[in-house]
Amino acid sequence: MTTTIIRGGTVVNADRAFKADVLCVDDKIVAVGQNLEVPAGAVEIDALGQYVMPGGIDTHTHMQLPFMGTVTADDFFSGTAAGLAGGTTTIMDFVIPNPKQSVLEAYHQWRGWAAKSAGDYTFHVAITWWDESVHRDMGTLVREHGVNSFKHFMAYKNAIMADDETLVRSFTRALELGAIPTVHAENGELVYMLQQDLIKKGITGPSAHPLSRPPEVEAEAANRAIAIANVLNTPVYIVHVSCAESLDAITRARAKGQRVYGEALAGHLVIDDSVYQSEDLEFARAHVMSPPFRSKHHQEALWQGLRGGNLHTTATDHCTFCAEQKAAGKDDFTRIPNGCGGVEDRMSVVWDAGVNSGKLTPSEFVAVTSTNAAQIFNMYPRKGVVAVGADADILVWDPEATRTISAKTQYAKGGFNVFEGRTVRGNPSHTIAAGKVVFANGELRAVEGAGRHVDRPAFAAVTAR
Amino acid sequence: MTTTIIRGGTVVNADRAFKADVLCVDDKIVAVGQNLEVPAGAVEIDALGQYVMPGGIDTHTHMQLPFMGTVTADDFFSGTAAGLAGGTTTIMDFVIPNPKQSVLEAYHQWRGWAAKSAGDYTFHVAITWWDESVHRDMGTLVREHGVNSFKHFMAYKNAIMADDETLVRSFTRALELGAIPTVHAENGELVYMLQQDLIKKGITGPSAHPLSRPPEVEAEAANRAIAIANVLNTPVYIVHVSCAESLDAITRARAKGQRVYGEALAGHLVIDDSVYQSEDLEFARAHVMSPPFRSKHHQEALWQGLRGGNLHTTATDHCTFCAEQKAAGKDDFTRIPNGCGGVEDRMSVVWDAGVNSGKLTPSEFVAVTSTNAAQIFNMYPRKGVVAVGADADILVWDPEATRTISAKTQYAKGGFNVFEGRTVRGNPSHTIAAGKVVFANGELRAVEGAGRHVDRPAFAAVTAR
Amino acid sequence: MTTTIIRGGTVVNADRAFKADVLCVDDKIVAVGQNLEVPAGAVEIDALGQYVMPGGIDTHTHMQLPFMGTVTADDFFSGTAAGLAGGTTTIMDFVIPNPKQSVLEAYHQWRGWAAKSAGDYTFHVAITWWDESVHRDMGTLVREHGVNSFKHFMAYKNAIMADDETLVRSFTRALELGAIPTVHAENGELVYMLQQDLIKKGITGPSAHPLSRPPEVEAEAANRAIAIANVLNTPVYIVHVSCAESLDAITRARAKGQRVYGEALAGHLVIDDSVYQSEDLEFARAHVMSPPFRSKHHQEALWQGLRGGNLHTTATDHCTFCAEQKAAGKDDFTRIPNGCGGVEDRMSVVWDAGVNSGKLTPSEFVAVTSTNAAQIFNMYPRKGVVAVGADADILVWDPEATRTISAKTQYAKGGFNVFEGRTVRGNPSHTIAAGKVVFANGELRAVEGAGRHVDRPAFAAVTAR
Amino acid sequence: MTTTIIRGGTVVNADRAFKADVLCVDDKIVAVGQNLEVPAGAVEIDALGQYVMPGGIDTHTHMQLPFMGTVTADDFFSGTAAGLAGGTTTIMDFVIPNPKQSVLEAYHQWRGWAAKSAGDYTFHVAITWWDESVHRDMGTLVREHGVNSFKHFMAYKNAIMADDETLVRSFTRALELGAIPTVHAENGELVYMLQQDLIKKGITGPSAHPLSRPPEVEAEAANRAIAIANVLNTPVYIVHVSCAESLDAITRARAKGQRVYGEALAGHLVIDDSVYQSEDLEFARAHVMSPPFRSKHHQEALWQGLRGGNLHTTATDHCTFCAEQKAAGKDDFTRIPNGCGGVEDRMSVVWDAGVNSGKLTPSEFVAVTSTNAAQIFNMYPRKGVVAVGADADILVWDPEATRTISAKTQYAKGGFNVFEGRTVRGNPSHTIAAGKVVFANGELRAVEGAGRHVDRPAFAAVTAR
Repeated sequence: MTTTIIRGGTVVNADRAFKADVLCVDDKIVAVGQNLEVPAGAVEIDALGQYVMPGGIDTHTHMQLPFMGTVTADDFFSGTAAGLAGGTTTIMDFVIPNPKQSVLEAYHQWRGWAAKSAGDYTFHVAITWWDESVHRDMGTLVREHGVNSFKHFMAYKNAIMADDETLVRSFTRALELGAIPTVHAENGELVYMLQQDLIKKGITGPSAHPLSRPPEVEAEAANRAIAIANVLNTPVYIVHVSCAESLDAITRARAKGQRVYGEALAGHLVIDDSVYQSEDLEFARAHVMSPPFRSKHHQEALWQGLRGGNLHTTATDHCTFCAEQKAAGKDDFTRIPNGCGGVEDRMSVVWDAGVNSGKLTPSEFVAVTSTNAAQIFNMYPRKGVVAVGADADILVWDPEATRTISAKTQYAKGGFNVFEGRTVRGNPSHTIAAGKVVFANGELRAVEGAGRHVDRPAFAAVTAR
Repeated sequence: MTTTIIRGGTVVNADRAFKADVLCVDDKIVAVGQNLEVPAGAVEIDALGQYVMPGGIDTHTHMQLPFMGTVTADDFFSGTAAGLAGGTTTIMDFVIPNPKQSVLEAYHQWRGWAAKSAGDYTFHVAITWWDESVHRDMGTLVREHGVNSFKHFMAYKNAIMADDETLVRSFTRALELGAIPTVHAENGELVYMLQQDLIKKGITGPSAHPLSRPPEVEAEAANRAIAIANVLNTPVYIVHVSCAESLDAITRARAKGQRVYGEALAGHLVIDDSVYQSEDLEFARAHVMSPPFRSKHHQEALWQGLRGGNLHTTATDHCTFCAEQKAAGKDDFTRIPNGCGGVEDRMSVVWDAGVNSGKLTPSEFVAVTSTNAAQIFNMYPRKGVVAVGADADILVWDPEATRTISAKTQYAKGGFNVFEGRTVRGNPSHTIAAGKVVFANGELRAVEGAGRHVDRPAFAAVTAR
Repeated sequence: MTTTIIRGGTVVNADRAFKADVLCVDDKIVAVGQNLEVPAGAVEIDALGQYVMPGGIDTHTHMQLPFMGTVTADDFFSGTAAGLAGGTTTIMDFVIPNPKQSVLEAYHQWRGWAAKSAGDYTFHVAITWWDESVHRDMGTLVREHGVNSFKHFMAYKNAIMADDETLVRSFTRALELGAIPTVHAENGELVYMLQQDLIKKGITGPSAHPLSRPPEVEAEAANRAIAIANVLNTPVYIVHVSCAESLDAITRARAKGQRVYGEALAGHLVIDDSVYQSEDLEFARAHVMSPPFRSKHHQEALWQGLRGGNLHTTATDHCTFCAEQKAAGKDDFTRIPNGCGGVEDRMSVVWDAGVNSGKLTPSEFVAVTSTNAAQIFNMYPRKGVVAVGADADILVWDPEATRTISAKTQYAKGGFNVFEGRTVRGNPSHTIAAGKVVFANGELRAVEGAGRHVDRPAFAAVTAR
Repeated sequence: MTTTIIRGGTVVNADRAFKADVLCVDDKIVAVGQNLEVPAGAVEIDALGQYVMPGGIDTHTHMQLPFMGTVTADDFFSGTAAGLAGGTTTIMDFVIPNPKQSVLEAYHQWRGWAAKSAGDYTFHVAITWWDESVHRDMGTLVREHGVNSFKHFMAYKNAIMADDETLVRSFTRALELGAIPTVHAENGELVYMLQQDLIKKGITGPSAHPLSRPPEVEAEAANRAIAIANVLNTPVYIVHVSCAESLDAITRARAKGQRVYGEALAGHLVIDDSVYQSEDLEFARAHVMSPPFRSKHHQEALWQGLRGGNLHTTATDHCTFCAEQKAAGKDDFTRIPNGCGGVEDRMSVVWDAGVNSGKLTPSEFVAVTSTNAAQIFNMYPRKGVVAVGADADILVWDPEATRTISAKTQYAKGGFNVFEGRTVRGNPSHTIAAGKVVFANGELRAVEGAGRHVDRPAFAAVTAR
């Protein structure tokens, strides 16, 4: 029996903040209150002057992903360990079957890869093609494997792109199973045409990347996915909303009462598209991800979305490739493996840019880094709240601690950090995962295989009583 | 010591629903959990098959209001008692000083009137004029009297209407005190002009009332109040949003990240403007309130607003006048005392029209009838949640119980009910207020003077840690 | 040499109205001015108290169309003759190649059919599939055959539906040729799914038709076409905009300065979806067209669009089938040939519902029935204006003449009229086409073959000087 | 008899461009056509390779204005002469009575001042206060003095600001007279509060000016004026729309079919708010006008508004003060006389930034610099079009002629030019006003007193026939 007590801090949940001690036994929180008695043998953490918050949930990571002919630099151990160092105790990764690959087989493959995780994990499963077996496997995954979200790529033509027919069929199936469909919203046909056009014109460097994926391309797909969800009467979740136009599509739908959710990436919130203009092409390539970084006014729009309740979660799309891997596209930007890191830094970046600036309150920070994700993906209140009965995934957050982010000092692999040089005020002094202190005052104590798969039940058709 | 245990129900809070027993000692909830032991001598309520929810908060009532030359039919006892019968355990009423009247004096006057309340109460204080004394009294009210919201009427020219200068000054003062400004949004100048114009044309009956207050008149004022709040950087709360256009103003502001809150009335959610066309003029007059009932498409918009998070609370503007009082305007619709009842029926009407239809989940119902109000007006978590430490204001809600609303059977006075004849499914089997069972299976046990004033502290400039 | 003089009327053009006589020699207007001298032998028309307006252009008709296994009731003679009777002197019809059919071959086929037209005609050419030959034929059509608009069906899956790839390629080609792409905006995948779903549930009657094509299905496609046009930087024209949501997509784009044009059908402007609920299934089937008739609030939106400049043209989608043909779908609504008439009645219906009600001024009426069409499709100022040098296509419009529309008295075939029983005030006393009086005081003098093909040149890349 | 022929150019009107010669006799255009015969003694202008366009109408100037304790540098002669040099042949100036001053008296005062004008002029009359005499004088002005537009300042508290009551009364009166109300849209109460607040904080320099008039302040007032117009059912015209938020209010109203018109200033289209940050305080003060220059994204919005049809006219708010006059506010930005020049440069600036960039076509340029103004203010087709019967106010526009704008070379007074150093391509080679060549190849031939007052009749309640 492990007993841990966090004393003297201010607990911050999504609904309010209050002074309280927090007592954990084994992997659960067992008491939250003022002046709790310290059990014998308890690990004691002094949180005076600090915030005590639910562990972060990164709703969008790709560890160990085979993609565009290579595999990401971070595997499930290094990736989740990096997350723990930064205050993220649960990741939501993606099973991405190849077209024609058995969805169930792919799921088991990913589960196998993930066994080494140091932090908790759970999977969205991508629907990249359609036949009767996919229909059947979706059922099996929901009923037997704790999957309640399915992902659809509207981009990546000639690869994993789902056409409208697949979207319609899969959304319909998800609804009937009590699972939520999610989409990567970019019109793949337009991206393809723009890419071909740029290449044809001899524009082959990384600065072409954002030109091939303008905001309208993203907004169109977001609007389409939302319209399909509207007609089918299913909720829908839009991953990595990067621009004002795409957010507008969500905002319009929500204003009509439609249940649409949106995710913002830490990178999109603070990095602008000037990175693609760098003369250091390796640097520019290192920022190639989709959707790309946008001009500054989109960042302001995303913060407005988080504050106004039209965006709900923050994530990273953590998907790291080292310079050598990125160099595969040195003569053709369409061959640069898409992806950037961030799982280690999201919490601090969002706090520093969001809370220190007054854009978000601490409770709103908790909502958009943890609680909303737990609720949308049905892990709540096991995850997403500091309360009796919840998993003991807890951050002790020092709002005054500063840190300068750098690839040199990071735990994540890939040798690059999009937040390089950014000094963030607000960092975890301690991360507790499943009741264990896994990060304390700069020291990471991640244990390979300590992470657990988080089963997420289907949404009940009718709320029980 | 009063001990009450509610057993076997499904607790519904704004964040989730779960099966649990709830134990109250005196006026507080002391335990929430499964299979709680029943203390000796405890009152036991069987909630099997029922929901257990936080008591309703009606953010907008006028008990015992001197208005348009008369006084409302319900005083603080009959009004709050009616609320308890319907599941509303806290009302937010209004102190409305006459122009030039000392604000503090008016406050004490209202506090005196409210002493007889059977349920808890708290006050918004209206700022109807401006000078240095008003500025000073606002400070006194916030610091010494538990007031943290101030109301501004943008209509009622030549009476209590606040002009732009007063709005600007009062909003500024409220912000500096940590209080939230609220507005009745109608352009009083346009209302006045339209009224004069109608009277001049000889259109004097109650059917003229909605013609004198079209949606644009409301939307203009809402937009103006929001713009002023935006420039001053203060949150703002719009009372009784009745139309799509006004909601749009809120939605646009929220989409920009502005902290704007909106309130919908139960009446506006389900009653349309055909009532003003009735040949029974007494019936038509009985529906005269401002803003008026609107055509059906506005109702759908309001529900979309509640579901999409652009409206936050539900209220009634309970302000009852009997037929004789209403008859003061029989020759001139501008002299009809404005106001309708509803405090007794809001919870059931919103549940029936909202939850039974699938528009809202039970948790969303709790949010819009109780939790959001508690949070916006800083009574949370004392009010608005079923949790340890909260006030024992609890509803045991039978989702299958039906009731046909009628003035004949209501507890509220005034002899009229705008929901007359409506059969609602979903009613409280028990209302517990401050730990006491005040309504049980149709029997009301309201006690004059049992209600307490709820002090609401100022909002902290910075969240404490 | 034919000489005609119209005396004493008020000329109404899109930019203004003024009193003037109009003199035509052969097929051209040669003078417009007050007190013109009457040439010897001139046909003289007294227009005192009447308006003199440019002949109507119906931007959307299907004469002699092979569709859904049958051919429309009106051929090019009866259809254009009916148009002349109602004041429409030019129709824009559609060449619709079968997938894999040579586009050029189809064009010549249609031109052959159209030779018998009594009024002027011109063709939009549909792009229903894609290969190199289509790319080449588009060039030939623009350069050699006076085609400058191409149509794309986003609905009718497994038939003539264009997928995103075809849209992207065809829009790109049109832009490079100086032609404008147009779209029938409905998401064909959703329509198909909804149709299958309804049939599966045994809902097979005509009342299922609107259920299979809700507004969101149309709005999605409109938004998508507009987004593609935005990315490709081409103007785009949306045919038969029937609902508020679709109009919103246009309005949003125009607010951003994008060159998007929208067309409203006379039927959508005045008929609502209650027609599908008729117990007379033949009647209901007779109204089956796509997009379907909508609920009333959409009609108001369309008028707002015309008045506010977000919709530009009015048309009919004239496509008549007789009851026997419609009966092909008596057991399966998806087999009802889609289409309704209207070419004969559009001008009067739009005048009566638009001008008589005060929604549109007479000049705005001319803009939306003639001038805008001529400008958007590059027939201006040959068509669309009463001015020296223009074609002598002129209406003498009696604003007081009333007529009750009926299939019994119409010139169009098909034996049905969606406007049956509607009395319209405002009708042509005379229609002059190519300088000849073809309709006078109720008498139709249409001549088979008198109509000419209107060549429409490509848009110049740069305005000449 | 003066006869002038412009040969070989491309006539550009709002509806189309075409090659034609233009013949003027005295002050009227008498022929437009190809290969016109040259009358004996005609002045011949070779327009080969040039555009021939209607003379510019500047809808917003203040010549000889007494304002903020001083009088503008340009009087009606120097101001209109500068306009002629730049291609503006008609100005719309403002009669601005002091509160309590007789409106009719003020009108005659201004008419007297304007007698020396070199170009045509007409007046909007400001309604700055209200009583029965104002009501009566409005009638006299419309019926007897060719006034059909009234201006209302929603800013300038304690001076010429019109409160809501005045707006409602004056709009109502204007509607009944067939005149159009216009507004300067800024919430004067907020401006005043922000000014006081900045002064109180010791922020007294010109950089405080934009801080005291943020976009929300403008958008609020625009929305309010539009709402009032909506309720009263009158068209309304918003002068100098400077920001996206204000344009949004117009766009929303127009999307609902409301007849709202908007004006953009040449300065707001190309100059951003960085001018207020200059360390050269004289330079910064020289840019103080209201609304102020805005950040760049607002400029893009204004161009979108012009292109999308939500803004209709371009103007300058020409109101020049020399450095000494501006220095009155050197210790207090609220005392800087508000105003900048531009009448001489608007046409070239809008052409260069609008047409050369591809934002506007030449026909759209004509619409927004001349035709729309003529139509909205009822001077069409006397003004705003090159057509037989129109005033011979004509520009021969050389699209290749470049000019670098400078105060050193300008005709306008005040010694400053906000466009200083800007090189514009596209300038008039000749300006013809009332049939006389008043500017030719750089030489100005303005004649004091040659300008005429342009009577503008009331709008007819019903279009005549």
